[in-house]
Amino acid sequence: MKRILSVLLVFLMAAPLLAQENYKTLSKEDSLKIYNGASTYDVKSYSATFKKQKPKNIILMIGDGMGTAQVFAGITANGGHLFLDNFKHVGFSKTQSASDYVTDSAAGGTALAAGYKTYNGAIGVDKDTIAHPSVLEKAEEKGLATGLVSTSAITHATPASFIAHQPSRSMYEEIAADFMNTDIDVFIGGGYKHFTERKDGRNLINELESKGYTVLQDMNKIEKVKKGKLAGLTAYEHNGRAPERDGMLPKATDKAISLLKNNKDGFFLMVEGSQIDWGGHQNNTIYIVEEVLDFDQSIGKALEFAAKDKETLIIVTADHETGGLGINKGNINKQNVKGGYTTGSHTAVMVPVFAFGPGAENFTGIMENTDIPKRISELLEL
Amino acid sequence: MKRILSVLLVFLMAAPLLAQENYKTLSKEDSLKIYNGASTYDVKSYSATFKKQKPKNIILMIGDGMGTAQVFAGITANGGHLFLDNFKHVGFSKTQSASDYVTDSAAGGTALAAGYKTYNGAIGVDKDTIAHPSVLEKAEEKGLATGLVSTSAITHATPASFIAHQPSRSMYEEIAADFMNTDIDVFIGGGYKHFTERKDGRNLINELESKGYTVLQDMNKIEKVKKGKLAGLTAYEHNGRAPERDGMLPKATDKAISLLKNNKDGFFLMVEGSQIDWGGHQNNTIYIVEEVLDFDQSIGKALEFAAKDKETLIIVTADHETGGLGINKGNINKQNVKGGYTTGSHTAVMVPVFAFGPGAENFTGIMENTDIPKRISELLEL
Repeated sequence: MKRILSVLLVFLMAAPLLAQENYKTLSKEDSLKIYNGASTYDVKSYSATFKKQKPKNIILMIGDGMGTAQVFAGITANGGHLFLDNFKHVGFSKTQSASDYVTDSAAGGTALAAGYKTYNGAIGVDKDTIAHPSVLEKAEEKGLATGLVSTSAITHATPASFIAHQPSRSMYEEIAADFMNTDIDVFIGGGYKHFTERKDGRNLINELESKGYTVLQDMNKIEKVKKGKLAGLTAYEHNGRAPERDGMLPKATDKAISLLKNNKDGFFLMVEGSQIDWGGHQNNTIYIVEEVLDFDQSIGKALEFAAKDKETLIIVTADHETGGLGINKGNINKQNVKGGYTTGSHTAVMVPVFAFGPGAENFTGIMENTDIPKRISELLEL
Repeated sequence: MKRILSVLLVFLMAAPLLAQENYKTLSKEDSLKIYNGASTYDVKSYSATFKKQKPKNIILMIGDGMGTAQVFAGITANGGHLFLDNFKHVGFSKTQSASDYVTDSAAGGTALAAGYKTYNGAIGVDKDTIAHPSVLEKAEEKGLATGLVSTSAITHATPASFIAHQPSRSMYEEIAADFMNTDIDVFIGGGYKHFTERKDGRNLINELESKGYTVLQDMNKIEKVKKGKLAGLTAYEHNGRAPERDGMLPKATDKAISLLKNNKDGFFLMVEGSQIDWGGHQNNTIYIVEEVLDFDQSIGKALEFAAKDKETLIIVTADHETGGLGINKGNINKQNVKGGYTTGSHTAVMVPVFAFGPGAENFTGIMENTDIPKRISELLEL
């Protein structure tokens, strides 16, 4: 009996240690840091010959939270190449906001949308909460067709910065209402609830329809739209993660371009890979890589059009980096990547800028994030 | 008495906690992660107008361990600007070696020096330990003047890769002896002991002198040299950290250029900011920032010459990133930066490439590290 008790005692004392060791081996947190390879896709090379020196159309593509390391994680996970390889004009964007060394996506989005620095949290308003038009609004004013695409709610900070003017990014219902004040031609993203379940009782879906929009929630139906204004609200709030949303972002990018390209005076389209940032916040390499690859395939859709059209400039950048991702280990042949992280928040590092198309040479060197919309305005004469 | 004992007991029990808290506040490791601002320097803008499409001279500047975040730490610490701002052609270099996803400085140096991937540890030899000439050796062969400058021992992996051919980076004496097989015009760095205290009994200083080199150890004397071949061995092993070496790297860069520029057929010079890497290994933001600023001031010296000369191409890059540096916090106005780190080793992330001068447009987009010497060879017709 005494021996049994002793053995039991030793076991009870050892149990927490064993459990701890076991936890360490199987740690969910650690396993999320490793992307272990999956299917890859072919990357096509496109000719960089264009009709004129200035573009007729501009597609601005924002990988939220996509720093240099996120891009490289994607390169590794796709076996060494991304559609981004086609971009021969490269620069860096300094992302600091008016209030903070480390920006949030609202101030970062506003800087990229309208060319001024503002406080963290501001959507399309300056330090004194005064609204200024974005490049999208100025393009619309000038007769260009305009569009917004995101995997997040379309009312989320980055897309919102291009169309709304509110003192706080959390004012989703006010942001949705701001869509009614514009003549944007196409928008596709999540956020259905902000258009329908509102404190003010308005049903913005009805309002959109009476303004002439085709309003759809099903991506398959959205893909079949051939003309007219389109509001695609593909999720109640945000769209799911890449493996759950069946190519929603590349498909929406492709659809938006196909509708906007018919405008004789050109178009401006913003596409956001919203969830690279969310993977960064979670320190989740799998999430980051899946979202970078999905975003890159959307870049592929834009490139396919631009290479044929020869009058379209594509600019790919980020609003900030998220997570302080470091690429500690990996293998390009096996497409695996082990990330390390310095924070669960955003970081201050400058982010890459890639440009392809007529006017691409204006987006090189080290610049402020606000220089990007300023140069877009110059090129489109907004 | 009993009360005194009780108080004493409580104090003794609390002491380790207090000490721990105190240690936490003053933690040397943590304090090294924060660069707290110091003196800044003015950054001049240089005109980018050049005589021809191709360069006569090339200066390749390697910031060992300098990834995107290291550059941005430097930008912050200098109040928002670096001499690198002058570089309008930007790209990324993929640093993987033949043996490893994460390269070391030997395979990384060899890739940048000679255009082939090799195993970690290899100096100027391929996977089968067969030697192939570097761009420096090919330039020398073609009649260009050549030079090497580093803050480390000149026999250390990066500079060694441009002039030596040895199966292992640790063969410092063999690497020093390889300098005797070349006609390099100028080299300035540490490593005196590898030239003098040798197992083979050779005194390479004497050999250098009999080959016609002025051999000097004092930077003040080196600065006064006006002509001829120069071997500057400014430290017994490595030079001290930036605050201890009195501008050795900018001065040596300036001196090397002033000696090499007289060659009518042009020159090739490699300059290494060796210790950015060592700051990364230590996860020491202060060390990293001081070394980046010192390296950038050396870039300033190269720019000053290139802008006047108008026939010189400067390429700035890194062999790899070190530390997985993330820029967690900071303030540009106060010039302070708080780094976070994901490792004490190198990481796999692609590193920036900056180019200024005739031919700079060949160093943009995402490239392999081996593409850099290949394009240098094409431009100099080596």
